[in-house]
Amino acid sequence: MSPPRGLAAWLHLTLAPGIGGETQRKLLAAFGLPDHIFSAGLSAVRSVIGNKADLLLDFDPAENIAQALNWAEQPDQHILTLADTAYPASLLEIPDPPSVIYVRGNPALLQGPAIGVVGSRNATPQGLRNAEQFSRTLAGQGWCIVSGLALGIDAAAHRGALAADGATVAVIGTGANRIYPARNRELALTIAERGAIVSEFPLGTPANAANFPRRNRLIAGLSRGVLVVEAATESGSLITARLAGEQGREVFAIPGSIHSPLARGCHKLIRQGAKLVETADDILEELNGQAPARHAPIPDDANEHPLLDTLGHDPCGLDELVERSGLGADSLLSELLSLELAGKIAVLPGNRYQRVD
Amino acid sequence: MSPPRGLAAWLHLTLAPGIGGETQRKLLAAFGLPDHIFSAGLSAVRSVIGNKADLLLDFDPAENIAQALNWAEQPDQHILTLADTAYPASLLEIPDPPSVIYVRGNPALLQGPAIGVVGSRNATPQGLRNAEQFSRTLAGQGWCIVSGLALGIDAAAHRGALAADGATVAVIGTGANRIYPARNRELALTIAERGAIVSEFPLGTPANAANFPRRNRLIAGLSRGVLVVEAATESGSLITARLAGEQGREVFAIPGSIHSPLARGCHKLIRQGAKLVETADDILEELNGQAPARHAPIPDDANEHPLLDTLGHDPCGLDELVERSGLGADSLLSELLSLELAGKIAVLPGNRYQRVD
Repeated sequence: MSPPRGLAAWLHLTLAPGIGGETQRKLLAAFGLPDHIFSAGLSAVRSVIGNKADLLLDFDPAENIAQALNWAEQPDQHILTLADTAYPASLLEIPDPPSVIYVRGNPALLQGPAIGVVGSRNATPQGLRNAEQFSRTLAGQGWCIVSGLALGIDAAAHRGALAADGATVAVIGTGANRIYPARNRELALTIAERGAIVSEFPLGTPANAANFPRRNRLIAGLSRGVLVVEAATESGSLITARLAGEQGREVFAIPGSIHSPLARGCHKLIRQGAKLVETADDILEELNGQAPARHAPIPDDANEHPLLDTLGHDPCGLDELVERSGLGADSLLSELLSLELAGKIAVLPGNRYQRVD
Repeated sequence: MSPPRGLAAWLHLTLAPGIGGETQRKLLAAFGLPDHIFSAGLSAVRSVIGNKADLLLDFDPAENIAQALNWAEQPDQHILTLADTAYPASLLEIPDPPSVIYVRGNPALLQGPAIGVVGSRNATPQGLRNAEQFSRTLAGQGWCIVSGLALGIDAAAHRGALAADGATVAVIGTGANRIYPARNRELALTIAERGAIVSEFPLGTPANAANFPRRNRLIAGLSRGVLVVEAATESGSLITARLAGEQGREVFAIPGSIHSPLARGCHKLIRQGAKLVETADDILEELNGQAPARHAPIPDDANEHPLLDTLGHDPCGLDELVERSGLGADSLLSELLSLELAGKIAVLPGNRYQRVD
């Protein structure tokens, strides 16, 4: 059997059981494209990820790959890899971008300015109204509304964007060919038609509580800021807000009555530094005050990327780079990967990085 | 005529027209006690305050002084000067402490730990409940509740403290022998009996809008922190909060629905750095650095009327309620009436309904 190449290699890398995101990033950092991983051979792969190399190379993903390739041949269904220019640039900024994402709908929406709007599944009627109204206003101003297709606030946020004829993206925790919850099936179909549904999970992945926090990091990752509309103090929305903060995104929260349990999560966020917002304009003011970053993590001018300066013109190991840059290994690897994909650096044997001028 | 001495000299200093607080402080800084000002003679006084010296020394305050001395001889009526040990130590920390204050009631309360509780005169029913409940809890923990005897939040704060058999101080903007507004006369008498009424204005001073901001600085000055319960964005409560901040006092604010105009002032404060509080414990924690044993009363009624859920915690109009509940207007109105009679909801101007917890 010849080693998989191109998209098939990306799928093999991401479908192999036991090979998580971190392992994938290690391999990509060491070998560059997946093609090189599979042509490098077992012992080279072992030198990077130890015994997991066997899990990866013993795995026979032929059937799953065929299914995925077939899925991606249907109209408006796409599989984007880290190496694709259509891959959302905003996700390259987060420490753990998925190696591939499955997209139903218009992948161009993933490149525009976006705001996450999330909140409780058991929202109050006023909370639903707020989610819908804020989203409608923001979408009307050209912002894509990103949410999680859950019942309650999420669904109201998507609906608000659609009501404004605006863009909306649903990031889901199941396979892109599965809709959960079933009650949002119709909404999901509309989003697939007029917006986009995004999943990093293999096709067919069922709903599983463990996957939702991972999904939440993508909601935040795709967004310049995240608005929490209503949330209990222990809730997935607060996880999304925390991840957004860690990713350097703005966090916004709508306050409410101190007697409303679903205002408490928002109040907690505000106490932790989230911006209290009363209107969609409060959000726009905050986000427009920022530099109009059109999500360009890899500047055309190589000299603009600070990591290239840090790297200098000599080969340098990862540990040394961690020390020089002050970045965590994860976010450093993700930066390095995007520089590599842009052809700005090369990875040498022994995991050393070399600037390419 | 021999120069006034002792309390009479303090009264002469503070009653002379045209001699404001700043001028008084200049003289006290230059001469020490007022006795020394009046025995120093015109040219010495001129060297400190220029032509204002004539205003001060030409003034014949005999009648006013006699009235004040007579007032202060009555039981539970006191005039405290900056030189008195009973003068509130907290006021000595502010940049512009009044030279004398008139006190009806127990001046010892001015020395204990105190929290200011202020807010709108046109408070919502829930706002009044919040003011009363927070004040009751704080007073029950030994904190003196300081407010301004105004209608609305102020009166509710005083009442809450009294309900806990706690201490409360009303700082007023009229002479200590005048009560404004008249509707709070009975409350004022109770405060004079069981707490204290404080004014820096000469006896007989009528209500005058210009005096209230000065009054507000004393509410903040007497307090370790100030809680704003409900306030419009342009309001005296925000002045009190600003002065509190300038005096180095903590500022606390209760958030509310983004659709309630009286939550906006609180939200503005929170955005400016005030602490968002949901319970009296939040305040105590901040001021004590530790949580006290008792908890703020937040009722938890298991057998809740379903319409209360439908209503949520934001004000809501009838049409919206018809839509949310699916009930006919007639049966909805009868349900609403019984909830109102049971004290569970309040009717706001514009026929909007607000849940009361």
